[in-house]
Amino acid sequence: MNNINREIRAESLMGKFDAEGAAARLFEDVAAFSADTAGVSRPAFSAMETRTLKYLEDYAHGQGLAVHYDAGQNAVFSLPEDAEAKKFILVGSHVDSVPNGGNFDGLAGVIAGLLCLARARYEGIRFAKPVKVIAMRGEESAWFGPCYIASKALLGKLEEEEINATHKGDGRDLGTHMSEIGINMNRVRQHLPLMDPKTIDSYIELHIEQGPLLIEKDMPAAVVSGIRGNIRYRNIRCIGEPGHSGAVPRAYRKDPVLAMADLLTRLDESWLTILQKGEDLVITCGMVATDPQRHALTRIPDLVDFSLDLRSQSAEALDDIRTLLMQEIRTVEKERGVTFERDGEMCTAPALCDNQMIDGLSESMARVNQKPFTMPSGGGHDAAVFANAGIPSAMIFVRNRNGSHNPDEAMEIADLIAGTDIIFNYLTEVAQ
Amino acid sequence: MNNINREIRAESLMGKFDAEGAAARLFEDVAAFSADTAGVSRPAFSAMETRTLKYLEDYAHGQGLAVHYDAGQNAVFSLPEDAEAKKFILVGSHVDSVPNGGNFDGLAGVIAGLLCLARARYEGIRFAKPVKVIAMRGEESAWFGPCYIASKALLGKLEEEEINATHKGDGRDLGTHMSEIGINMNRVRQHLPLMDPKTIDSYIELHIEQGPLLIEKDMPAAVVSGIRGNIRYRNIRCIGEPGHSGAVPRAYRKDPVLAMADLLTRLDESWLTILQKGEDLVITCGMVATDPQRHALTRIPDLVDFSLDLRSQSAEALDDIRTLLMQEIRTVEKERGVTFERDGEMCTAPALCDNQMIDGLSESMARVNQKPFTMPSGGGHDAAVFANAGIPSAMIFVRNRNGSHNPDEAMEIADLIAGTDIIFNYLTEVAQ
Repeated sequence: MNNINREIRAESLMGKFDAEGAAARLFEDVAAFSADTAGVSRPAFSAMETRTLKYLEDYAHGQGLAVHYDAGQNAVFSLPEDAEAKKFILVGSHVDSVPNGGNFDGLAGVIAGLLCLARARYEGIRFAKPVKVIAMRGEESAWFGPCYIASKALLGKLEEEEINATHKGDGRDLGTHMSEIGINMNRVRQHLPLMDPKTIDSYIELHIEQGPLLIEKDMPAAVVSGIRGNIRYRNIRCIGEPGHSGAVPRAYRKDPVLAMADLLTRLDESWLTILQKGEDLVITCGMVATDPQRHALTRIPDLVDFSLDLRSQSAEALDDIRTLLMQEIRTVEKERGVTFERDGEMCTAPALCDNQMIDGLSESMARVNQKPFTMPSGGGHDAAVFANAGIPSAMIFVRNRNGSHNPDEAMEIADLIAGTDIIFNYLTEVAQ
Repeated sequence: MNNINREIRAESLMGKFDAEGAAARLFEDVAAFSADTAGVSRPAFSAMETRTLKYLEDYAHGQGLAVHYDAGQNAVFSLPEDAEAKKFILVGSHVDSVPNGGNFDGLAGVIAGLLCLARARYEGIRFAKPVKVIAMRGEESAWFGPCYIASKALLGKLEEEEINATHKGDGRDLGTHMSEIGINMNRVRQHLPLMDPKTIDSYIELHIEQGPLLIEKDMPAAVVSGIRGNIRYRNIRCIGEPGHSGAVPRAYRKDPVLAMADLLTRLDESWLTILQKGEDLVITCGMVATDPQRHALTRIPDLVDFSLDLRSQSAEALDDIRTLLMQEIRTVEKERGVTFERDGEMCTAPALCDNQMIDGLSESMARVNQKPFTMPSGGGHDAAVFANAGIPSAMIFVRNRNGSHNPDEAMEIADLIAGTDIIFNYLTEVAQ
């Protein structure tokens, strides 16, 4: 138990549990020891990650909580009386960050869980069902390429190809890194879960919102309805016919840039129609480029490259937008004499949050005097792995400025407490 | 007089003037001595350009033509009886090429003029008015930046800024290069014409078409109605707001790529409407790019850069499309929460060909059994300088494959002869 934890405990014992003060210090301490040239860097399956878990362990011990490490070397916390529970609600998130990332993505969900335990312990409250809080390791794809690594390994879903992915820094593979911190890779390779899924009643994850919706709505938190799946094309090439910008009449042009603009505008218009029908969808073209070696102000370019990221909570809507994309591509090809070539399509299925849990968490929102509000998650989270493994799962989003994966992430501690209150109420009064 | 010229002359004297054979050899010889790693390179105001003029001078002497150099060091050819004419129709074009260019851009117009003189001399025909043929120096902007250099200098229109432009290869300025080949730069700097404009009755230039229209129409040649002017923006920046591709709902996006696509699609639709009203217009976006340092598949980009080249034969249509562009920019800015920033606008006024000459050349087309056809010129030509200096000017386009400014320019000699026949008929029977 370090000095800081002693101090927090001492304060807490003087009155009502000071969740806000505890959260502020936990974030400050972790930010201080994981600080990088900008923001924080807590690499997946690294000594820094282990140090973070150890720090949280010390804090938990200071609060009189039980701590153990699972077979995936994730830290698992509980009230002492729930330490041997055969079935429990699992609350948590990840502690790793992207390089030069923000301090809140992942860590907020772990600290929210710990605050629930510490408060219950401090106030002598028992949960409706046993609760365990998990501080997971690597979730970010920035280090090895695959994402949700710790939760996939936990549920026996990590694939050989992912295990063989190499670290962006040292070039050694993920399996080696995981093995070095004490994970039995034979079990992982055989797809044997590192935590028995039957022991997990359900999974709850709090996470900062990575978009601006809660800021725009002026709300501190929301219940997540589901995690959007996606269809991605890293590169679509529209091939036309080059020509002199002044000398080729419109009727004889095969202009790839105007063809791309036409396709994007058609998708944009359909997007609006789909939203008006009540479906969930976002469309992003993040990268566009004509060939810098050959393009010119006075030349109709021969080709243009662009990316496309289509996301929806509904697998059906994703199928529909893929069909629409192919139809519009054929129409534009026919009308404009161009050709579209696509590289491999990458797909991730949407993950739906459990309806009963959404209802329960919404009820808790009302009980803690917040207006119930649900919204989809655009980014992917560990919760998607639990949900797709058949474990009832739910998420709480907390208002946050400036998106995530950058040093400017800006979550207010008061908002974190608002989100934590929903989970605490759910765990103590609503969970059946 | 070199051996090749002797040979051509000897052949010609055996029967009807063999214009096709003469043209083929002239093009072959010039291509041979100006060959580069790919295509030909005849730099503006270079020794290679001087060598080309000297070669043409030798050919002209071989045909019994008069040759002199004007104060701009351009070669001027005529029938001996027209050498001292006080007023004459000027026929010609330029002999320089872009680096690794094609052999026909420019040179075709000079050779067409020479063939008219040689045929008249051979067949003992007099022109309706005195005719001089000019083989001009630098027209291409590829070497120094400014274009139409020789014709601007000839008419006292070359600006100080252009004279100070430096050569892309040796870095020395245009004035130095021009001075070295014997041009009095004091006269040029004082905007004194190097050829008295009052002596030029009118100007006729034959040029390869730089677009595909004559190929598509299956016609060997056309009379040019005018030279398109342009409004150019080297860079327009659309600034939006970056965000997570999955986490920002449509209503909160300020997506610069979809805004650009919207703007281009609006311009494209208006373009079609303007053409349907009978106006002349071409619109080209030749360069597009999101920031390669910051863009990503899963990120709404913060900005996108693109170029715009708007051309029309009508100054009014150019004004209209500029107004429309500004209106559409304001609409898209308002609807999508983005901002468009434009760098300096570059404008070139359209040059209209002389109506009486268009009619005369069209009449000649019919007389040489070609279906009269007029079309605008998308690229700029020396004829624009003569026209804008108040000299009645006209152009003939000759069918050509693969555009210009590349080694793949592909003009058939038979088509050049078809174009030359129109000019020859005009000079002998129609010109008043």
